[in-house]
Amino acid sequence: MQVLRTVAEVRALVARARNAGRIVGLVPTMGALHEGHQSLIRRAAAECDLVVVSVFVNPTQFGPQEDFDRYPRNVERDAELAAEAGADAVFAPGVGEMYPEGYQTYVTVERVTAGLCGAHRPGHFRGVATVVLKLFNICRPHRAYFGEKDFQQLVVIRRLVSDLNVDLEVVGCETVREPDGLALSSRNQYLTDEERRVAPLIYRALRRAAEGLRSGQLFHFSPEQIVRGALGREPRMKVEYVEFVDPVALEPKDPCQLPVVIAVAVHLGQTRLIDHVIIEGREDA
Amino acid sequence: MQVLRTVAEVRALVARARNAGRIVGLVPTMGALHEGHQSLIRRAAAECDLVVVSVFVNPTQFGPQEDFDRYPRNVERDAELAAEAGADAVFAPGVGEMYPEGYQTYVTVERVTAGLCGAHRPGHFRGVATVVLKLFNICRPHRAYFGEKDFQQLVVIRRLVSDLNVDLEVVGCETVREPDGLALSSRNQYLTDEERRVAPLIYRALRRAAEGLRSGQLFHFSPEQIVRGALGREPRMKVEYVEFVDPVALEPKDPCQLPVVIAVAVHLGQTRLIDHVIIEGREDA
Repeated sequence: MQVLRTVAEVRALVARARNAGRIVGLVPTMGALHEGHQSLIRRAAAECDLVVVSVFVNPTQFGPQEDFDRYPRNVERDAELAAEAGADAVFAPGVGEMYPEGYQTYVTVERVTAGLCGAHRPGHFRGVATVVLKLFNICRPHRAYFGEKDFQQLVVIRRLVSDLNVDLEVVGCETVREPDGLALSSRNQYLTDEERRVAPLIYRALRRAAEGLRSGQLFHFSPEQIVRGALGREPRMKVEYVEFVDPVALEPKDPCQLPVVIAVAVHLGQTRLIDHVIIEGREDA
Repeated sequence: MQVLRTVAEVRALVARARNAGRIVGLVPTMGALHEGHQSLIRRAAAECDLVVVSVFVNPTQFGPQEDFDRYPRNVERDAELAAEAGADAVFAPGVGEMYPEGYQTYVTVERVTAGLCGAHRPGHFRGVATVVLKLFNICRPHRAYFGEKDFQQLVVIRRLVSDLNVDLEVVGCETVREPDGLALSSRNQYLTDEERRVAPLIYRALRRAAEGLRSGQLFHFSPEQIVRGALGREPRMKVEYVEFVDPVALEPKDPCQLPVVIAVAVHLGQTRLIDHVIIEGREDA
């Protein structure tokens, strides 16, 4: 497993592969790899000849009050986990390699970043779009793999690639969950035992609302009331948002009009968790 | 001469060339080609194996009160002039091909767009940076050629390429001028005969200030007063700005501290003209 620190090293590796007609896959991550990332890497390894995993805790996507400083970092461990899942190289640049002195260019995707996490984390998706475009330009992959768990991020990246004519395929991969339903996230390791115990409530509430919408059954309460009601009973949870949006435009939508995405963000103690479900159509349709 | 209208056609042409090991050059233009553009194309033809000239009047870089609607358009004539100068293909997409329904992604270069034209044309360089990045991604050139005449634009594009890790070389080419010193511009054709007669005053005023700074002679008036004074004597001219800036950071600078750029924008009747001189160092240094 090669751990590359510079843009020039990755460029050279990828140029050799492309010149030899090999298919290049990129899995962009912020490190702290878990089974969710490994599932992306395994998929990339199955579909590509050279798999690069980038590990970069990107400062421009964190707000001033967020967890940039305490975000877990362990490149050696990440390189082991990436290799185990089939990666060929890890690209782990320093902040100065990505944002040298004088840096001043940013990419903004507009409408799809207006709601959900975009509304609560100003500048977050500008940071994401910018660093992802940089990683695309550095690593020149044929395919790039992202988890569906960060649903809005995936929509933003698809939009960016389409709008800016980036010549690659974005592959969205299903959320990996713990047996009790909690979506895997590097931030889960922030949770206390007690918080970890109640965290599955989030997905349980989403599933309950989804089942109601899918079955077309009448509600005594609106889907939003169901989700908020279920989460609100747990005093450690502060709901940041529960929204019903269109899966492509991400605009607010009547939850009874399918397809719809139910997206939530919750503060559980000091930890912010997000999750969502997509309801494609009614069972009776 | 091929005139290509779609992204897919250009991609196919460039992919064939790159796969055959040929060097691809791009000359981005808004059409209304003149000898200035032709000099870029000739340079590209001398240095590259396949030269693509893009012709696209980009709506996102025009303000609501600007000349988008009356900007001269004649793709057939442009294709002839491009061929004459050595181009292999013209890429002339429609607005819908570049900005399809739902388009919402923009590139912003920050500090170097704060002053000069950026201060007087809000959103202009966002439009330029966005369309140029799209053209880079569509045409995948090894080298891209831009006139130094649009000096701030050239600085913005160099910054964009460096910041976003775009893998190509930006080539800046010297401003081509009429015998009387007027910088070639597609907008010169807006000038009335009378305006055309006085237009060379702009470059004459810049040269006079530059000579003073270069020779290190003492001034009774500041360089700004010299430029404004010379232009102000012509009642048809309204000076939009005269600024002294650093050639790389584009930040305001004491004009006696070399190197310095003197940049001006002038409204001459209905037409906005820009020009600049770079003063690298003193003759006695």
